[in-house]
Amino acid sequence: MQIKSVEIVAVGTELLMGDVVNTNTAYIAKELTAYGVNVYHHATVGDNEQRMEQTICEALERADAVIATGGLGPTYDDITKEVSAKIMGQTLVFNEQLWVELNALFDKWGVKITENNRSQAMMPTNSEILPNPNGTACGVVIYNDDRTKCIVLLPGPPREMKPMFDKWAEAYLADENKGKLYSKNLHFFGIGEAPLEEQLKGLMQSSTEPTIAPYAKTGEVMLRMTTRANTAEEAEKVFAPSFAEINRVAGEFLYGINVNTLQQAVVEYLSEHSLTCAVAESCTGGMVGSRITEISGASRVFRGGIICYCNEVKNKLLNVSQEILEEHGAISEHTAVAMAKGLRESVGADISVSVTGNAGPNPAENKPVGRVYIAVESSWSSFVTEINIGRRDEDARELIRYVASSHALNLILKTAKQKINQGDK
Amino acid sequence: MQIKSVEIVAVGTELLMGDVVNTNTAYIAKELTAYGVNVYHHATVGDNEQRMEQTICEALERADAVIATGGLGPTYDDITKEVSAKIMGQTLVFNEQLWVELNALFDKWGVKITENNRSQAMMPTNSEILPNPNGTACGVVIYNDDRTKCIVLLPGPPREMKPMFDKWAEAYLADENKGKLYSKNLHFFGIGEAPLEEQLKGLMQSSTEPTIAPYAKTGEVMLRMTTRANTAEEAEKVFAPSFAEINRVAGEFLYGINVNTLQQAVVEYLSEHSLTCAVAESCTGGMVGSRITEISGASRVFRGGIICYCNEVKNKLLNVSQEILEEHGAISEHTAVAMAKGLRESVGADISVSVTGNAGPNPAENKPVGRVYIAVESSWSSFVTEINIGRRDEDARELIRYVASSHALNLILKTAKQKINQGDK
Repeated sequence: MQIKSVEIVAVGTELLMGDVVNTNTAYIAKELTAYGVNVYHHATVGDNEQRMEQTICEALERADAVIATGGLGPTYDDITKEVSAKIMGQTLVFNEQLWVELNALFDKWGVKITENNRSQAMMPTNSEILPNPNGTACGVVIYNDDRTKCIVLLPGPPREMKPMFDKWAEAYLADENKGKLYSKNLHFFGIGEAPLEEQLKGLMQSSTEPTIAPYAKTGEVMLRMTTRANTAEEAEKVFAPSFAEINRVAGEFLYGINVNTLQQAVVEYLSEHSLTCAVAESCTGGMVGSRITEISGASRVFRGGIICYCNEVKNKLLNVSQEILEEHGAISEHTAVAMAKGLRESVGADISVSVTGNAGPNPAENKPVGRVYIAVESSWSSFVTEINIGRRDEDARELIRYVASSHALNLILKTAKQKINQGDK
Repeated sequence: MQIKSVEIVAVGTELLMGDVVNTNTAYIAKELTAYGVNVYHHATVGDNEQRMEQTICEALERADAVIATGGLGPTYDDITKEVSAKIMGQTLVFNEQLWVELNALFDKWGVKITENNRSQAMMPTNSEILPNPNGTACGVVIYNDDRTKCIVLLPGPPREMKPMFDKWAEAYLADENKGKLYSKNLHFFGIGEAPLEEQLKGLMQSSTEPTIAPYAKTGEVMLRMTTRANTAEEAEKVFAPSFAEINRVAGEFLYGINVNTLQQAVVEYLSEHSLTCAVAESCTGGMVGSRITEISGASRVFRGGIICYCNEVKNKLLNVSQEILEEHGAISEHTAVAMAKGLRESVGADISVSVTGNAGPNPAENKPVGRVYIAVESSWSSFVTEINIGRRDEDARELIRYVASSHALNLILKTAKQKINQGDK
C-alpha cells in the first residue's frame, strides 16, 4: 500500500494530564513531512478504550495510516494493541518466537520475567512486527484485511520510538522506484534565518532536486538539503551544485555538516587536529565548559578553565589587574582580554577563550543587558569582540547566556580552523 | 456556566509539521487537572478552515469548553477567531476601544501599525475579551447564544498564553462559593518517587483537603498540596497537618517550598544567610556553576571556581598532588577531597564543593559509568560522598552529569543549613 497521508495519535494519561510534554508527535510529524507525507491532524488520548477507539477510527477515516505511540507496555492499562487490532478486524495470537526472544532479553538483563509480560508476545493477525532493540515492547504494523489502511504502533519512550520509526519509515515510505531519501544538514552560526533566506531566496525557491528547507534553533540556523537517490554517492552529486552556491554565499557562517550541536563540531574538529582549548567564564558561569564536556571524548581537547564570578577571582586566578577592573569595569574589552591572557598562562591550552558580559536582568556598570565581550588568545591569533544580544523577553537571562556561550564555541572553532588553514598554505 | 470538562485544540502549521514542540497543551492540561477539570482529548490542526471547524466542533460536542491556542495574529492565515465565531453562531464586530488600545501599544513600541492589524480589533458578539499585556493579540471567550458552551481562544506564544490562561482559569474555574485554589509545592531531592509514595501512601490516598499529588522531574520529586480557601492564611491552616506529617517522614529530603529549581533554593538560602560558595568541577565540566549562575542574583553568593578536566589543571590550580592522582586516580574520594581543599584555599568561599566522576560512556580507572565523588569543605563541616547514578540509557552521559550537579547543589544547601541550624542552638 502507498501512504500519502498519516495522522498521529499519542496515547497516555501522563500526556493527557500534561505531566509529560509530547515530543514524539513533533518528531514523527517532522520526519513524515520530510518524506513528503501529508499530516493534517494530531490527537492525544488516555488509556480509555472507547475514546481511544473513536479517536483512531476518526483518524483512519481521513488518512491512509495512523501512527500511534504509547500504551504497548505489559500492564492492564496498556490497551493500544488490543484496540487497534479490533478496529482493523484482527485477533491477537500468542507468538511463541517473540516470547522466547523476550525471555532471552530479560535473562540478559538479569531481570525476572513476569506473567503479565506475556501480553507483549500477543500479536494481531495480518500484522508485521517491528523489533525493539532498546526495550521490551515490540512495535507492530496492523493492516485491515484488504491492506488499504494500516495502524503503526510504536512504544512511548522516545529512545525506543525514534529508531523504530526511522526504520519503518525508511522501509515503507521511501518509494523504491525513486530510491532512498538522503539528507545533508548544514549548520550555521552568526547569521539569522531571515537574512540567510534572503540571500539564498532564488536557490531555495527554485531548487527541487535537492529540496532545501531552513530550520531555526536558538541562535542558529540549519539548512536541510534532501533528495532521493540510489546511493549516498549519487545523492552527493545532486547536493554538490547547491552546496557550492550556499557555501559561496554563506560559507563563513557554516560551522558544521551533519553535526548535532556547535559543541560537537568543536570537539570533533579540535580532536581531529590535536588542538586543545580552555575557558574563562564570567557571565556564562561554566556553561561553555558544560556544553563542551557534554560531548563524549571532550577530554581529548578540553583542559578546563576558571569560572570567575567575582572580581577577586578574576584578579587572583586570572591575573586581571585592579587597574583594569577599576578603570574599565569587569564587563569590558580590557577585562575580557586580560582574562584570556591570564587563562593562557595558567591553563596553557592551544586556544584560550574568555567571556564577560551582562546577562541581566538589570544594566550593570553602564552596560546594557545583553552586552558581552569575548576574547581569544592563542599563539597564532588574539582578538576581542563585542556582542550585543538583544531581546525584551522575561527569559532573556538564559537566552543571553546560551547565545554568549554559542559565540564562544564558534570562536574556538574559527580560531582552530584559522590555524589549520594557515598550515595548509 | 460551569466547566467540568475541557478539550484542548492547538492551531498551527508549524506544530502540525513538527517544527515546534507543543508545550502549550501540556501546560494547560496540567493546570486544568489541578483545578479538577476533566481533560480527555487533545488535538492539533493547521490553518485550514474546514479541518479546524471539524476538529473544534467534535471537541465541543464532547466537552463543556474548548481551549484553542494559536492563530490569533494579524495575517491572512490566522483564522481561529473567525472559525470559532462561526461555530458559536456569532458575528465579528469592529471594537473601536480595542483599536485605540492597539494603536497606543504600537506607539509605545515605536512600531508603525499596519492595516492588517485591524483584524485583531474585530471581536465576536457574545464574547469576552482577555487582555494581553505581552503582545498584540487579545484572547477571547466566545459563548453560544444560550451560554451552555464556550470556546476560549489564547495566543500561541507561551509567554503570552500562560499569564492569560492563568487569569482566565482563576476567574472562571475557581468556584466562588468554595473560594480560590491554593497550592503548596514541596520539592525533594535524594529520594525517588516510588519510595516517597510508599512512605506517604496512607496520607496521599486518604487526604482530600488538601489533595496531594506527586510529580517526578529528573532526579527529583515534587509533591503538590492543593486546596480551596478564601485566603492564603486559611489555606495554610488546611496544609499544616499534612505538611507536618510529610516533614516528619521525608523532611531530610525536602529542599524547598514553592521554588522553581534546586539552584534557586541554593541561591536564595545562601543569599538570605550571607554565605558564599565555589565549585571545582571535573566530570560536570562547569554545569554546577552554570546552574547556579542561571539565577538572577547569583553574584551575591557565588564566587566562581575551577573546571579541571585534566590532571595538570587539578594539580596546578587545585594543588591535588601527583601522588594522589597516581595512587588513587582522578575519579576517587581522595581526589575529590583534595580538589575541595585546594578550591577553598584558592577561591576562599564559605562552602567549597568538588565533583569528580565517570560520566561515561565507558568505564575509566576501573570505575563504572555513573560513579561520582563529591566533597565539601567549609570551616564547620568537611565530608566526601560516593554516588552511583545507574542507568543503561544511551543518553546516560547527560543524565549522569545533571544528577551529579544536582547532588552538588543539594550538598551546598545542606552544608549551609547545617551552619545556620548550629547557629540557632
